[in-house]
Amino acid sequence: MRFNRQLESIKVYEGGKPIELVMREYGIAPEDIVKLASNENPFGTSPKVVEAIKANADTVHMYPDDSMIELKTALGEKFDVDTSNIILGAGSDQVISFAINAKANKHKKVLTARTTFAMYEIYAKQIGATVIKTPSHQHNLDEIYSKYKKDGDVGIIFLCLPNNPLGECLDKEDVFKFISKIDENTMVVVDGAYQDFAAAKDPKKKIDPKELIETFPNTLYLGTFSKSYGLGGMRIGYGIANEEIMQALYKMRPPFNVTSLSLKAAKAALEDEAFVQMGIENNFKEMKKYEEFAKKNKIDFIDSYTNFITLLFDKTKNSSEIAQLLLKKGIIIRDLKSYGLNGIRVTIGKPEQNERFFTEIEPLL
Amino acid sequence: MRFNRQLESIKVYEGGKPIELVMREYGIAPEDIVKLASNENPFGTSPKVVEAIKANADTVHMYPDDSMIELKTALGEKFDVDTSNIILGAGSDQVISFAINAKANKHKKVLTARTTFAMYEIYAKQIGATVIKTPSHQHNLDEIYSKYKKDGDVGIIFLCLPNNPLGECLDKEDVFKFISKIDENTMVVVDGAYQDFAAAKDPKKKIDPKELIETFPNTLYLGTFSKSYGLGGMRIGYGIANEEIMQALYKMRPPFNVTSLSLKAAKAALEDEAFVQMGIENNFKEMKKYEEFAKKNKIDFIDSYTNFITLLFDKTKNSSEIAQLLLKKGIIIRDLKSYGLNGIRVTIGKPEQNERFFTEIEPLL
Repeated sequence: MRFNRQLESIKVYEGGKPIELVMREYGIAPEDIVKLASNENPFGTSPKVVEAIKANADTVHMYPDDSMIELKTALGEKFDVDTSNIILGAGSDQVISFAINAKANKHKKVLTARTTFAMYEIYAKQIGATVIKTPSHQHNLDEIYSKYKKDGDVGIIFLCLPNNPLGECLDKEDVFKFISKIDENTMVVVDGAYQDFAAAKDPKKKIDPKELIETFPNTLYLGTFSKSYGLGGMRIGYGIANEEIMQALYKMRPPFNVTSLSLKAAKAALEDEAFVQMGIENNFKEMKKYEEFAKKNKIDFIDSYTNFITLLFDKTKNSSEIAQLLLKKGIIIRDLKSYGLNGIRVTIGKPEQNERFFTEIEPLL
Repeated sequence: MRFNRQLESIKVYEGGKPIELVMREYGIAPEDIVKLASNENPFGTSPKVVEAIKANADTVHMYPDDSMIELKTALGEKFDVDTSNIILGAGSDQVISFAINAKANKHKKVLTARTTFAMYEIYAKQIGATVIKTPSHQHNLDEIYSKYKKDGDVGIIFLCLPNNPLGECLDKEDVFKFISKIDENTMVVVDGAYQDFAAAKDPKKKIDPKELIETFPNTLYLGTFSKSYGLGGMRIGYGIANEEIMQALYKMRPPFNVTSLSLKAAKAALEDEAFVQMGIENNFKEMKKYEEFAKKNKIDFIDSYTNFITLLFDKTKNSSEIAQLLLKKGIIIRDLKSYGLNGIRVTIGKPEQNERFFTEIEPLL
């Protein structure tokens, strides 16, 4: 059977074996496993979320409220924007796909930093759009601008602020200066999946969605419940933009794209900001230990504005080997070899998880 | 801002106000509302599902197991197919989108019956593919074949068996004869969202996914957990096809496309077939009452192989008016005016819900 041509350049995403299987292979007990691979919240999710899920468990036969008005109202209050400026997705991922499907095509390209969130490229390839990237791994606005000017056919620019999987974050002032030079017909997406971490560490990094979209009509802000709010398994995120962009995104949205329990869980999560703040405080307190550990062991690291840290090895070490050896000891982290980097990304865990990581990796260095 | 051209022909899907709001407007108490509009399971979902959701409520901070191996194994056993022949979607809807994105495009069309599941057309339009339809509302294989031959550029044919929103169902034998005349390069999708209802009513309607895909390499079978399994709010469905088609569908799948609780809920639902059978038995017992009611009131109806019945009015009545008057009394059903039909689709409810419907509609006829 012949399929659409763009499929030829797409590799099937390999989900990887479930942890349980890997660990069974290595004979490791579940309680000895430390997963610091997916930037999940190590404290789980708010007890209010668990309560909301249990309270609504017997309503799952009914389709979700497709207006999603309860959650949109709560988000609207949080960000001081109208509910008509908000769209919800099955993860902010899905809002990325709406934006790419609306703005990119075989002739209109997607522009990103060299090493950034993998979904930008995955969704672009699915519709046969070309992705162009900067020479530098980390976000470099001069390079992004130069690519944008040189190409002339860019439909969307993605800025991941702070950047996953590297952790760096541009200053708001520089970002605003950059966007002011971009043609209003090019969409600029500010992916704020980890913004609450960045804003807590350094106010200069903070991008307010309302100010962003009021200053620039061609911007789309993305947020997620998967990280600080602890809802990675529920697949829920959001986009904030002006009416014109919203209209386009809603045209690409399938009805009932978020589950009923995800809507209830996210609403409950928003009602427990204390839980989120507790996680963020632990994060930066613990991150200091990673920085000290790296310095002590002469490992390079990228100053991180997220809930993970990227350690970069010199030529005497091999990130894939280290990742594999850690796995055998029950420590799961992310190898960055597939991004062309000799490094690993480690989610900041709870104190005892981080201690385990230090203890297990030290002999491998 | 300019968007991709296909957006010009797409209307934003209007989710409709949540019931709660409508009812508050009309001053109707929640306990007086009877919702027979979305073909949900009137008995809710299995207690085993509720239990599984509650038991996993505190794990939602972790991303879903993207291999989805537990649920695929359970489905593989149910249908006697290999797990590599199965793909899971956020509703079978999403598998429809994978298929359309892989096979249809600006030059390759989508062919359907005139009145069938709305998502085929919605997804086709999102990628700018043309949809061609038969003159008849209900599935007519001669008409579908004639459109297919005449056009010559059909990428996918959708057969909704039984058909939503009308309820009719083709015989398996006729379907197999039809598919045998279709070129192997055209994908034929058998949407079996309501197959368990059809198979229970008349074994001649039953299509076995394994037999289908082993007989025809160009077929994709779709199933859902939203109907008889009572998981409409959890957004989970599946596709079954041969390796070649699976490879293509997996290329269009975003990682983590189903929530962790949906996977757990679906697995639990599969373990309680008795609950499903109870619902199906009630369905056809109660459907007889609708048929008798229709005959008594001289209303046409379509012989239904699903969990709903379509009532067709003569010119003295107006389906939209009737739907609106019912709504004011707290009865929610689906008006079919937007499909060009003067009729309504009513989900078969529990005995007391159906009695309420008969009582409220009778004075309007």
